[in-house]
Amino acid sequence: MIGRLNHVAIAVPDLEAAADLYRNALGAQVGAPQDEPDHGVRVIFIELPNTKIELLNPLGADSPIQGFLDKNPAGGIHHICYEVEDILAARDKLKASGARVLGSGEPKIGAHGKPVLFLHPKDFNGALVELEEV
Amino acid sequence: MIGRLNHVAIAVPDLEAAADLYRNALGAQVGAPQDEPDHGVRVIFIELPNTKIELLNPLGADSPIQGFLDKNPAGGIHHICYEVEDILAARDKLKASGARVLGSGEPKIGAHGKPVLFLHPKDFNGALVELEEV
Repeated sequence: MIGRLNHVAIAVPDLEAAADLYRNALGAQVGAPQDEPDHGVRVIFIELPNTKIELLNPLGADSPIQGFLDKNPAGGIHHICYEVEDILAARDKLKASGARVLGSGEPKIGAHGKPVLFLHPKDFNGALVELEEV
Repeated sequence: MIGRLNHVAIAVPDLEAAADLYRNALGAQVGAPQDEPDHGVRVIFIELPNTKIELLNPLGADSPIQGFLDKNPAGGIHHICYEVEDILAARDKLKASGARVLGSGEPKIGAHGKPVLFLHPKDFNGALVELEEV
């Protein structure tokens, strides 16, 4: 069911400093910052040859990653995103297996303009899993 | 400098249960368990079309991931591994930029028989980064 790893998201306390680290120390291809007000995040994508790293920083007062940064002030790996062909079919299969979908259970439009869902980390070995329809 | 994302490693409290979850609920291609006594881990690789997920479970009394599981009993995303062409050149560039290399600073042979190094998470936004020469 799951396909490619679309991205690994890392929450960072300072987006520009993190971008500099990836650009200069790690020599990676770093995109421009993008505000995602609907998701409460400002993001920069690092383009690797086979997938992406998404650097996440809070945007606005109710950012869903503020709590993570409060607990992990230096930042940390926040979630992994797997691609699926049919997000509603994937959701229904996962729910039937006992996995919990976060929020309303209905897909939202994610950072790439595609429908996304998040799955409960307690059902996935402590890893927050995003599914993105491609 | 960094190339492909070689894998994302997830520490799990029950390797067989995690493998079943990836095989059945997520419908992924799941490999056979492999003991890595030199690294104190038992691993299962999940083969995605563009990269791998490495499920990690402690092996032996001095496993380097036991402390992580003590702090995170449900498991969690443990590290990300980037490929590099020349691990000594990468190490020296990173050290010159101020990043700290864990352990002796000399590469060890990793799970794929290739030289690997780990970088200090405090220098990488709280993310434990492995470099693997390919």
